[in-house]
Amino acid sequence: MTIVQSPRAMSQLEADAPHSLVVRFGADQPLKMDAGVNLSPLSIAYQTYGELNAAKSNAVLICHALTGDQHVANIHPITGKPGWWQTMVGPGRPIDTNRFFVIASNVVGGCMGTTGPASTDPATGRAYGLDLPLVTIRDMVRAQAMLIDHLGIESLFCVVGGSMGGMQVLQWAASYPQRVFAAMPIASAAKHSSQNIAFHEVGRQAVMADPEWRNGRYLDEGTSPTKGLAVARMAAHITYLSDEALQRKFGRNFQDREAPTFSFDADFQIENYLRHQGTTFVDRFDANSYLYVTRACDYFDLASDYGGSLAAAFKGTKTRFCVVSFTSDWLYPTSDSRAIVHALNAAAASVSFVEIDTDRGHDAFLLDVPEFITTTRGFLDAAARARGLAGS
Amino acid sequence: MTIVQSPRAMSQLEADAPHSLVVRFGADQPLKMDAGVNLSPLSIAYQTYGELNAAKSNAVLICHALTGDQHVANIHPITGKPGWWQTMVGPGRPIDTNRFFVIASNVVGGCMGTTGPASTDPATGRAYGLDLPLVTIRDMVRAQAMLIDHLGIESLFCVVGGSMGGMQVLQWAASYPQRVFAAMPIASAAKHSSQNIAFHEVGRQAVMADPEWRNGRYLDEGTSPTKGLAVARMAAHITYLSDEALQRKFGRNFQDREAPTFSFDADFQIENYLRHQGTTFVDRFDANSYLYVTRACDYFDLASDYGGSLAAAFKGTKTRFCVVSFTSDWLYPTSDSRAIVHALNAAAASVSFVEIDTDRGHDAFLLDVPEFITTTRGFLDAAARARGLAGS
Repeated sequence: MTIVQSPRAMSQLEADAPHSLVVRFGADQPLKMDAGVNLSPLSIAYQTYGELNAAKSNAVLICHALTGDQHVANIHPITGKPGWWQTMVGPGRPIDTNRFFVIASNVVGGCMGTTGPASTDPATGRAYGLDLPLVTIRDMVRAQAMLIDHLGIESLFCVVGGSMGGMQVLQWAASYPQRVFAAMPIASAAKHSSQNIAFHEVGRQAVMADPEWRNGRYLDEGTSPTKGLAVARMAAHITYLSDEALQRKFGRNFQDREAPTFSFDADFQIENYLRHQGTTFVDRFDANSYLYVTRACDYFDLASDYGGSLAAAFKGTKTRFCVVSFTSDWLYPTSDSRAIVHALNAAAASVSFVEIDTDRGHDAFLLDVPEFITTTRGFLDAAARARGLAGS
Repeated sequence: MTIVQSPRAMSQLEADAPHSLVVRFGADQPLKMDAGVNLSPLSIAYQTYGELNAAKSNAVLICHALTGDQHVANIHPITGKPGWWQTMVGPGRPIDTNRFFVIASNVVGGCMGTTGPASTDPATGRAYGLDLPLVTIRDMVRAQAMLIDHLGIESLFCVVGGSMGGMQVLQWAASYPQRVFAAMPIASAAKHSSQNIAFHEVGRQAVMADPEWRNGRYLDEGTSPTKGLAVARMAAHITYLSDEALQRKFGRNFQDREAPTFSFDADFQIENYLRHQGTTFVDRFDANSYLYVTRACDYFDLASDYGGSLAAAFKGTKTRFCVVSFTSDWLYPTSDSRAIVHALNAAAASVSFVEIDTDRGHDAFLLDVPEFITTTRGFLDAAARARGLAGS
């Protein structure tokens, strides 16, 4: 895998020619979208780690979060940084690539090679932009099911993911219960709250307020709404961290100075950190994709497809669940996970629930939090034994 | 008072010619600012309600929050709406204008007639813009003390305010202890946390990302960074409300429709509400002022002026304090108020502390919350008796 020097240009290339595996579905296999449209052609970019066993019973599907991608456990082709879940995935890790066949695909609406607004629409030769139909979590999962079919896998050993990834896990368990042996929704929710929608709407408005956004046509016009997207990322990033973690890491510490400058410079470390989060994000992420994936989350309300009953979504399920939350996560607080657990209990599902005590906020699912690592390992080990998989 | 039709033009007029009382301090009375600059001339725009008694012992100073102003209990000259604290201030209200002489002034750095970045710099004939030195909470309070001197008042009966207003209350009590008989900091903090700074920085970056901001020179150039300012307001507004209140008021309700439109329209009521908050705000508030007042809060750390000891800020105080917080306020949570109370206790001050149980979030201090109204009435009644003021 080559690391390219110009990241902005690179992120546009990734949309059509990703540095990963890709499967392309033609006109005979459209994606049936909730918006009422059949999307075709459809590309799904994905990575795999480890080997599928002869029984095809050891596949783990990892669903990524809002701005994640398929590069779970390899160097990222744009940023050159390690994969986003290397704490969890690899030889000897809880999601053990010596034992499991791990699949991770970029979501529909994303910008790393699966069809999204930055992809070239073959009908026009231009990027889709806002001509791409709005995407839902269920659409993302339908596309993943097409990938799993393509890989010849009938039943996944486990579907796992955090945040928006957890929403996909829940949707998998509801839509394809017979195809999911075990499911692990982490730091997630069965529906987006009013506050969740509010934060996403601020981000979208920040992107759309940037005159370089050009009603979504910036790729054609050679502009880039980087300022708006950076503001969106900054606002979102605050929600990923806890008040306590910010206080511990940054407090009111000054950045490379002893006293305030009485200016609008980044006097405080937290300001410098946030600005850095904003500017680095725009190098790797497409602004329209940000609109699509935030909207997909906002539309997510699993119970609404089951007459308003979340328990009905899981009726008769044989899947074994492990629901995980973090005490200091205020984006998808423990109460959201408890609502999932209550519904699973009402559906008489096999469920364990772990609330992990940490001050690291929502992003704890991406970090090396020992109790979380141990929990995941324990759940997967037990499920693997129940599935009759060989020990690691 | 005349209500003018064109609010945008009106807000610029208010900066130089406010619809309120104004006192202008000349070259002989500069404002000594923390930035190390003497600001002159200085205008302070203010309103008064009620009558000052012969002993000049019944004056209540109300300090406003970030985007508040002096129009506490009268129709606002730009919006035409009632004053922002009419629940609390008026005849027979807790801050009883039949009993007290109520003073409210616009802060330095504001845009409603006190010198701020939208005011005309007499040296250039142009708006100050970013040429105005950065303002601190202590600068705001120094200016208020000049106003109180001008009004011939030696000692205030009470200084009261919520949020940034509460910071001013604390600064008054620390800087001028002998001039403050009673003090009521509400939903406030003795210093801005890392998360507080983070949210403010997002707002500032949203304003500065708007190309119409023109490095702060938009008034000269005839542009207006309304989109950036609206995004800033939207992000901030989320922090003023609790998750529970948003869920109760808006939930996932659709706006004037039965189902999602699969577009980026404001499908949800919360989106429509936030957009409305953003667009109405820009009609009444100056973008540079927003930068100044947010920065003033971020710089606020009262203990830092007293060797890092908040208790030292209140050493020997005779002021009687009532500290108020709201259970669902996550912007300035109860722990911030407790830190103030602990410091006051350590300084052997007279202090009562009331945490009010409400789901209405930070903005509860602006709302008709019965327990809050009762608390304020009780505290002021008792303090008035101690001061020997006649009953209402």
